[in-house]
Amino acid sequence: MQRVTTTLDTAKLANRIDDAVDDGDLTTVSSLIAPLASHEVADVLERLSRKDRAVVFRLLAKDEALTVFESLDAPLQGELIHDLQDEQVTGLFAELDPDDRVTLLDELPATVAARLLHGLPEGERAATAALLGYPQGSVGREMTPEFVSVHPGDTAEQALAAVQAHIDDVETIYGIPVVGPGRVLVGIVGLRGLLRSAPDTPVSEIMNIAGTARARESAEEAARRCAEQRLLVMPIVDDEHRLVGILTVDDALRILEEAESEDAARQGGVEPLNRPYLSTPVRTLVRSRVVWLLVLAIGATLTVKVLSVFEDSLQEMVVLSLFVPLIIGTGGNTGNQAATTVTRALALGDITTSDVFRVLGREVRVGATLGLVLGTLGAVIAGALFGVDVGLVIGATLFGVCTMSATVGGLMPIVAKSIGVDPAVFSNPFISTFVDATGLILYFLIAKAILGI
Amino acid sequence: MQRVTTTLDTAKLANRIDDAVDDGDLTTVSSLIAPLASHEVADVLERLSRKDRAVVFRLLAKDEALTVFESLDAPLQGELIHDLQDEQVTGLFAELDPDDRVTLLDELPATVAARLLHGLPEGERAATAALLGYPQGSVGREMTPEFVSVHPGDTAEQALAAVQAHIDDVETIYGIPVVGPGRVLVGIVGLRGLLRSAPDTPVSEIMNIAGTARARESAEEAARRCAEQRLLVMPIVDDEHRLVGILTVDDALRILEEAESEDAARQGGVEPLNRPYLSTPVRTLVRSRVVWLLVLAIGATLTVKVLSVFEDSLQEMVVLSLFVPLIIGTGGNTGNQAATTVTRALALGDITTSDVFRVLGREVRVGATLGLVLGTLGAVIAGALFGVDVGLVIGATLFGVCTMSATVGGLMPIVAKSIGVDPAVFSNPFISTFVDATGLILYFLIAKAILGI
Repeated sequence: MQRVTTTLDTAKLANRIDDAVDDGDLTTVSSLIAPLASHEVADVLERLSRKDRAVVFRLLAKDEALTVFESLDAPLQGELIHDLQDEQVTGLFAELDPDDRVTLLDELPATVAARLLHGLPEGERAATAALLGYPQGSVGREMTPEFVSVHPGDTAEQALAAVQAHIDDVETIYGIPVVGPGRVLVGIVGLRGLLRSAPDTPVSEIMNIAGTARARESAEEAARRCAEQRLLVMPIVDDEHRLVGILTVDDALRILEEAESEDAARQGGVEPLNRPYLSTPVRTLVRSRVVWLLVLAIGATLTVKVLSVFEDSLQEMVVLSLFVPLIIGTGGNTGNQAATTVTRALALGDITTSDVFRVLGREVRVGATLGLVLGTLGAVIAGALFGVDVGLVIGATLFGVCTMSATVGGLMPIVAKSIGVDPAVFSNPFISTFVDATGLILYFLIAKAILGI
Repeated sequence: MQRVTTTLDTAKLANRIDDAVDDGDLTTVSSLIAPLASHEVADVLERLSRKDRAVVFRLLAKDEALTVFESLDAPLQGELIHDLQDEQVTGLFAELDPDDRVTLLDELPATVAARLLHGLPEGERAATAALLGYPQGSVGREMTPEFVSVHPGDTAEQALAAVQAHIDDVETIYGIPVVGPGRVLVGIVGLRGLLRSAPDTPVSEIMNIAGTARARESAEEAARRCAEQRLLVMPIVDDEHRLVGILTVDDALRILEEAESEDAARQGGVEPLNRPYLSTPVRTLVRSRVVWLLVLAIGATLTVKVLSVFEDSLQEMVVLSLFVPLIIGTGGNTGNQAATTVTRALALGDITTSDVFRVLGREVRVGATLGLVLGTLGAVIAGALFGVDVGLVIGATLFGVCTMSATVGGLMPIVAKSIGVDPAVFSNPFISTFVDATGLILYFLIAKAILGI
């Protein structure tokens, strides 16, 4: 009973299971997975090849199989659905919560999805279809329609009885939405509030104002608010403020984790994997990177163009070419820094698109200050090595490049957001490529002015 | 009651409050903040200047003030503590939960911290001092020592009575740790489990194996596990598996949000702000960036050095210098992509440092594939514009640079983690700078070999 989860070496265990499967020794496999908790089994499965994963999964007991299946990322769930026998699949699918089912359906080919939906019991099918009616990426898709609600006129005792009656078929009982006539949401009451009140207290006296989200709202924004306001349960309403579902904190956690992964990926110029690294085939890794890399490389041909315009100056003073990587590198770094800070502030809701001028004002000042520090340093060092003129050129360029890059880097994410694009898409590599070309133009214009070439 | 939180324009409201404070019109300020929920007041405060923030905070009712204070980031809390009157501060401080108090104490100068600690009632001081005994960054610092626990031999009814008895002075009642003799943790039972069982069922029959963390373990890792296993409550134990506290899901959420912000910042070469963007002074923004920028700029002087070694080749064939930004840009991008993917996989626990060779194998293959695509394309285009020889040089260089950068970018985060450094510190700009210099060496060696210069 005192097993501590941290000490398990999943990598080693996955290797042993892998070997056993290859030897066809399923008894050993069973004995290796038997002592594991469900989330540990899921960790091991994520490390196996697709074929081995299906084999090991079949060895799990029915209840355990469901819990493990629920912990897997949707793309892996989709593969398993393909690889398992029909009968096993129908069973698994029917046991899932409607919101998890919707996420999985989005992964599957339409024909498979339709067949699975068709096989569901009536009530489950209705709940799932209702969720499917909301646009992809909306919190309506992620919420659960299985909840218990109470009325403001109920007493604490009646409310507790209602909770007890549904205790086995709802996702959570710790936050209970309160609805008035026409199912309009009027508040939320915590189970704790009910338990600590006198039995005849009306719910209307215990309930709180609910932090809510509209069903069509972005799932990420709703989840972020749920997390920020530390809610265990966030009621989801339609446009008439009628209660249609709830978002639980664990769903919010899953949504935020996916959103963070997506932002991290985009910031690095990669398409999000949505699945664990080790179970992602190499060709999928390549696909997640090659498009952005090509876009950026095509962008970078701009720098070739810019440099060829100034080829004569380069011919005349080869020393100028020595500083090209330093200058574009510094520009890229300054731009990235600003973009990273602003993207994160947008994600956390610390700033909105209407703050564009405040951000502009701040980033110009930050960029100019950084430019002053780096420019002075650059001027002194380059001046000492290559003469005062070259020092002046480098110093002035670094100052200009830092100011421009911080400004562009700070504004880009806001521009992206205000035209409805994920701010992280105008990502760091994208900004680097843009400021590379403009930085070079600045460099050669300053060089021509100061050196008279 | 039906106020929907999403429609509030905090930016506009903050401006109006700002104006009212400047006019000394505190009645208007009061009427503007009166209808706001606590988290909205916090959002507004984050946008005000330090002086205005203290003014507005003083206008809040005592209860509200506490809730608002709790939602602020620790550095802002620290400033408020400085700006408020002593008496107000002591009151606020005593009302905080011990774990929040510890976070705040870390922000304050030692003398202020000591004075505040001294002013606490006996029991509160003991709880806070116990948390302070754990190393910074450990989950022991973040856990709450205020919880209710039950024994395996208790009946469900007895357990519920214990919960009822402590319902007002513990942080959560939804997950209840079960302890045996000597306070050794033996499991956890959900309030839901207690409510649905017959009153005479022993707790030992309802309880589950608990996902736990050791108090000295990193707070981020514990929070990540809490989130991954979808736990509302994670018991924290000492080395003898004795229960010392609990981590609630909302604490886990806060820890993860800070960790994500830190990772995002590091990946962009910025020190984490730990406070909202708009309430961060420009000089703090500069400070968060200038050190990394200088480190990177000094790293970039390596490229100046490399280029000056090959100055003769450059002099002979200026065309080579045209491709310098393209080549180092592509290397940087490929390295960033690999580093981003691997850093995220490490953060999520999808891979561990023992997977180093599997990552190596994958990234070499991914890099080579990307290099093949870009190299071919580069060779064709450069060949068409500048002749076959130059085309060959560019193609071969792009292939080599992509393979090397993906490998280095993929390995760096693992190396960092295995020597105990945050993987995000070996951040994208850092990798760019490193592969810039090596990429240039490769470029000129290939050029010399093929062009015979």
